[in-house]
Amino acid sequence: MSAPKIPTEQWAQIAEKVGGPLQYKKIPVPKPGPADVLINIKYSGVCHTDLHALNGDWPLDVKLPLVGGHEGAGIVVARGELVTDDIAKIGEAVGVKWLNDSCLSCTFCQQADEPLCLKAKLSGYTVDGSFQQFCVASARHVSHIPEGVPLDEIAPVLCAGITVYKGLKESGARPGQTVAIVGAGGGLGALAQQYAKAMGLHTIAIDTGDDKKKLCEEMGSKVFIDFAKSSDIIKDVKAATKDGLGPHAVLLVAVSEKPFQQAAEYVRPRGTVVVIGLPAKAYIRAPVFESVVKMIRIQASYVGNRQDGEEALDFFARGLIKVPFKTVDLKDLPKVFDLMHQGQIAGRYVLKIPDPE
Amino acid sequence: MSAPKIPTEQWAQIAEKVGGPLQYKKIPVPKPGPADVLINIKYSGVCHTDLHALNGDWPLDVKLPLVGGHEGAGIVVARGELVTDDIAKIGEAVGVKWLNDSCLSCTFCQQADEPLCLKAKLSGYTVDGSFQQFCVASARHVSHIPEGVPLDEIAPVLCAGITVYKGLKESGARPGQTVAIVGAGGGLGALAQQYAKAMGLHTIAIDTGDDKKKLCEEMGSKVFIDFAKSSDIIKDVKAATKDGLGPHAVLLVAVSEKPFQQAAEYVRPRGTVVVIGLPAKAYIRAPVFESVVKMIRIQASYVGNRQDGEEALDFFARGLIKVPFKTVDLKDLPKVFDLMHQGQIAGRYVLKIPDPE
Amino acid sequence: MSAPKIPTEQWAQIAEKVGGPLQYKKIPVPKPGPADVLINIKYSGVCHTDLHALNGDWPLDVKLPLVGGHEGAGIVVARGELVTDDIAKIGEAVGVKWLNDSCLSCTFCQQADEPLCLKAKLSGYTVDGSFQQFCVASARHVSHIPEGVPLDEIAPVLCAGITVYKGLKESGARPGQTVAIVGAGGGLGALAQQYAKAMGLHTIAIDTGDDKKKLCEEMGSKVFIDFAKSSDIIKDVKAATKDGLGPHAVLLVAVSEKPFQQAAEYVRPRGTVVVIGLPAKAYIRAPVFESVVKMIRIQASYVGNRQDGEEALDFFARGLIKVPFKTVDLKDLPKVFDLMHQGQIAGRYVLKIPDPE
Amino acid sequence: MSAPKIPTEQWAQIAEKVGGPLQYKKIPVPKPGPADVLINIKYSGVCHTDLHALNGDWPLDVKLPLVGGHEGAGIVVARGELVTDDIAKIGEAVGVKWLNDSCLSCTFCQQADEPLCLKAKLSGYTVDGSFQQFCVASARHVSHIPEGVPLDEIAPVLCAGITVYKGLKESGARPGQTVAIVGAGGGLGALAQQYAKAMGLHTIAIDTGDDKKKLCEEMGSKVFIDFAKSSDIIKDVKAATKDGLGPHAVLLVAVSEKPFQQAAEYVRPRGTVVVIGLPAKAYIRAPVFESVVKMIRIQASYVGNRQDGEEALDFFARGLIKVPFKTVDLKDLPKVFDLMHQGQIAGRYVLKIPDPE
Repeated sequence: MSAPKIPTEQWAQIAEKVGGPLQYKKIPVPKPGPADVLINIKYSGVCHTDLHALNGDWPLDVKLPLVGGHEGAGIVVARGELVTDDIAKIGEAVGVKWLNDSCLSCTFCQQADEPLCLKAKLSGYTVDGSFQQFCVASARHVSHIPEGVPLDEIAPVLCAGITVYKGLKESGARPGQTVAIVGAGGGLGALAQQYAKAMGLHTIAIDTGDDKKKLCEEMGSKVFIDFAKSSDIIKDVKAATKDGLGPHAVLLVAVSEKPFQQAAEYVRPRGTVVVIGLPAKAYIRAPVFESVVKMIRIQASYVGNRQDGEEALDFFARGLIKVPFKTVDLKDLPKVFDLMHQGQIAGRYVLKIPDPE
Repeated sequence: MSAPKIPTEQWAQIAEKVGGPLQYKKIPVPKPGPADVLINIKYSGVCHTDLHALNGDWPLDVKLPLVGGHEGAGIVVARGELVTDDIAKIGEAVGVKWLNDSCLSCTFCQQADEPLCLKAKLSGYTVDGSFQQFCVASARHVSHIPEGVPLDEIAPVLCAGITVYKGLKESGARPGQTVAIVGAGGGLGALAQQYAKAMGLHTIAIDTGDDKKKLCEEMGSKVFIDFAKSSDIIKDVKAATKDGLGPHAVLLVAVSEKPFQQAAEYVRPRGTVVVIGLPAKAYIRAPVFESVVKMIRIQASYVGNRQDGEEALDFFARGLIKVPFKTVDLKDLPKVFDLMHQGQIAGRYVLKIPDPE
Repeated sequence: MSAPKIPTEQWAQIAEKVGGPLQYKKIPVPKPGPADVLINIKYSGVCHTDLHALNGDWPLDVKLPLVGGHEGAGIVVARGELVTDDIAKIGEAVGVKWLNDSCLSCTFCQQADEPLCLKAKLSGYTVDGSFQQFCVASARHVSHIPEGVPLDEIAPVLCAGITVYKGLKESGARPGQTVAIVGAGGGLGALAQQYAKAMGLHTIAIDTGDDKKKLCEEMGSKVFIDFAKSSDIIKDVKAATKDGLGPHAVLLVAVSEKPFQQAAEYVRPRGTVVVIGLPAKAYIRAPVFESVVKMIRIQASYVGNRQDGEEALDFFARGLIKVPFKTVDLKDLPKVFDLMHQGQIAGRYVLKIPDPE
Repeated sequence: MSAPKIPTEQWAQIAEKVGGPLQYKKIPVPKPGPADVLINIKYSGVCHTDLHALNGDWPLDVKLPLVGGHEGAGIVVARGELVTDDIAKIGEAVGVKWLNDSCLSCTFCQQADEPLCLKAKLSGYTVDGSFQQFCVASARHVSHIPEGVPLDEIAPVLCAGITVYKGLKESGARPGQTVAIVGAGGGLGALAQQYAKAMGLHTIAIDTGDDKKKLCEEMGSKVFIDFAKSSDIIKDVKAATKDGLGPHAVLLVAVSEKPFQQAAEYVRPRGTVVVIGLPAKAYIRAPVFESVVKMIRIQASYVGNRQDGEEALDFFARGLIKVPFKTVDLKDLPKVFDLMHQGQIAGRYVLKIPDPE
């Protein structure tokens, strides 16, 4: 496929300083480095992390001015001189993820833990991300989107989907075992339930409210525990397992701290609590005596590596994952952030990035 | 070997009620059940757990009246009718451990996690232990002490040694990697350093005081960090590793809570914090954000299973483990508890159990 | 539940000497030992191994006279004095498997590899099996059949089902990966495809003939390769995987030797060939050079341990496994062996054991 | 450090066609690509593979004309424009290995199995290797030689050492367990025994002749089995283990086929046979029945990945590995090949590469 004409300017949502405001304006189209690709972004998911980045919530400095976004699905339109067809093709559909690039040389990269690379570049955080028409990413780090996959629905999978899939892998839970998902009614939780099912796992959904209960039932969970209504969450979670010993794994995708301090008490002996969600300033907490005599494991899990990404996308391509999402235009990103700030988002928002003129 | 004559009465240290006092007196010799052995105890280690049991410190009821002790080394003198030579021989040297018996049938026993058995019997806690001349234990659960191994020195290995060996296995650290041992100068710590070395691991010893520093150097640790003198323990532990990224594993055998809340911050990304020590009412604590982006693991580790026990004894039999211990008579157990209560024990006390008359 | 009245005599199929003939006659009802249960068998599957046992085909002596059978489903009617309700209840539905008993004490039993126990007792081989109305088995080794599960259909799961489930676990294949099943149209193969699917795996079915093709499609395999029609089986198996690199695992449940010498050549680099089937006098064979540069693994897999058994039954209880079987009376066992000898069995035969008078 | 002056011509041993002859002559100094380094080779080991390459013995075409060699130790003197100090520094000591480069993008590279990369470049085989003064290699693939390590002695570690270390990792043998090394008296075997010891493993050395026996004893093996003198090698290997059940792992570094067909019979149940050596046209062979009832594993193991390389070098740097080697000049390579062809090499030959003029 011949490379299309690439403009010199493009539309983007850009913040000049921490806290914003966001400006929707034209900025130059970036040039890919020798090992990079330039991607014409078609859709980008909006993640809570994007709001944290804008607000500088985390103990890690953001690039400024900043174009956010790390769930970008688009088409490769240019590439550096070292990028061969084996790595990424012009015209290919690819995904830009949180991990924009890593050194592929440090001890973590050597062990396929690229997300732990000390030189990692983070999309929409330390380098510009997917809230623009043309985005640069390392050719070796983009995800390859299988043919026939819709670019709008896949966008949230590129971060939320891969992250929960990775967490389920890290849990060590085997097909036939049970995993409790805390925050099951949120964006990550909805995906987690579907990935769990596709992996042969049973799920116990934990969240609150009738809407979320309904969603979780649709996602295939046979048990829903409303933490706001439960008078003894530890007892109730254990009781939801066939032998009363608790789930083999717990996936923490909640946005408040409390579950991070309860899960160790209801997980099954020899079970694993997987820590994924990132409530601000939160701590994991577990009683030493009970944890020891139960030999529990607490595993913190970050985003997936490249292989995790390919696998997570493959589950989607096989029709096993449905993403609840709404589409709005790139220019409406501030409205999405407002809703997010108010905690009024069910499912996931996806931005339609305008086509180049 | 023909079975020796077994008396009907024996000397024991026994507590009638929680908190004691201990009485050194004659009690009946117990009879082994069909799957049990009767062991003439020659030596028994004294563990902090024995003091906790006497004082009822833990959220688990003790048997009363109670004969404590769970590090007993002795000789099989009788056995139940179902015990064959493949399982335990008359005249064989065996060890009585914390896990006196388990059901060998529940899901945990089926997966070789006997210490998690819900029907577990605990020596010197829910059944009488090794502070007596004749002790009963499940024939399938006693450890087989290799020939030539001295019964006094091996006694503390039966709990302390196996426990730290298990913890090192659970850490997942591979030969050539580095493990920090917190509480390195104590009884468990001294053994942990030796097991680590025998397993091809490097050790960073963490404790306080010049005596403990000297001990740790003797145990083969090239680095000693005095936590009382360090102004920044997190920085110092990381700096003690070649690439400054922190140790691959941390073994917590400390008796105070603080290290349980620090280790997650200096362990290497993808590293494992192994929780073994049991400070009263203590909690494990770790920051969510930093833990996630480093993908750390916290693994709580209890006593070993039967196979761990055989392996740990084999390391001793090959001359790789030396136990610092002092021997006193069974009747002097109260004095040992006094010293323990005052925190004045370096190394391990081993009780000489009087020979049957 | 009160124990039923147990007769002193019972019907059985018994062989006095190697090669038979089988005699259908009355023999005494055996007595359970202290750690055993007596099971009133309701149904028993018939396995190729039963025919091998009768004919003395294997390099391991059989008990004589012999009552065969190792896929027995029935009800506990009596138990030894050491068997508590935690282990097995009177009135409970249980399964008798190939592994009738093991020592639970040797190094293999200690590591949950009971099938490798050097003192293992084998149902219908070294001890009498399930081709009788009342069978003895170790209480700790019987499988617990979940409520509501039909005893006829579950019978073949007790050996064939557990064995293929174990093999799939040993393969290390993860949900989303692909496993080729060689001998997919046979009894083990049909179950293997269903277990694989329930575990989130894709299957490539390899066998021959249109009947088997149809069966495999019903079992959920999207690809069927007829080895008799293929001019290049290695090429065809690789081509059946999305990236042409071959399946992540190969499950050999074939009854002829050839596939055991081909699989290493089409399995994916880093993939695993699981050896399960037992063609007489067969050898595994693989080229050294190609195996090394692909880093392949060959894993021989035997019957499951107790935990594998419970898990495999749980998949069935959840409705994920259907067993193609026909039922005949115990007295007609010789006819089943005749058909088996002629290679004319599709699916599995299950014997209806007559009720006690 | 400032980059040295690099000549335009250099000395090399080069073969114009398969089978040679080798010519020692001046050829141009190559230029590193953007992601490569240029290394001034100081020493290069000579491996049997180099002779196979020259003679075209394997089913994989060699580059022509060819500069062989894949155990090169030298100093980085130039680098491509994309190579930063994090990856490789000018003046740094590095090693050139069999794996000269890989794509770092395919599914195998993504999973840290770079040696399985379908686009792998092989030093001294598909690209020019270390039998020259200046060699090119991918900056991300060179091994970093720790300070103070002598470049002559480390050369053979870069292939032979890493390969056996990788094999020991793949064996899954844990500290305290036993590994039999077949071909223990050869170059790989001598290193394997030392790595095994450093990893806490016991070794059984298998080879033939009194010289090799002596060498193996020096390498720390307590047991030596002379296969030429043994009347029953299977019995003898089993008898050399404490419980008579056989070694936990077998490392096949032999140069003849027979051991590849015996090892499955003496390895312990659940044990692993690691296939490393590459006798021409050889096959792995194992009896199906005995393999299944013992659940043995056969694992083929190739060269190490980058992380394995760093680890193997670290063992050397800590003084745990001694390499028996002799040094000759680069121009004398044909004599080394002659000796190798005659099977007269004990230990390893290392070529001194002349310094640039």
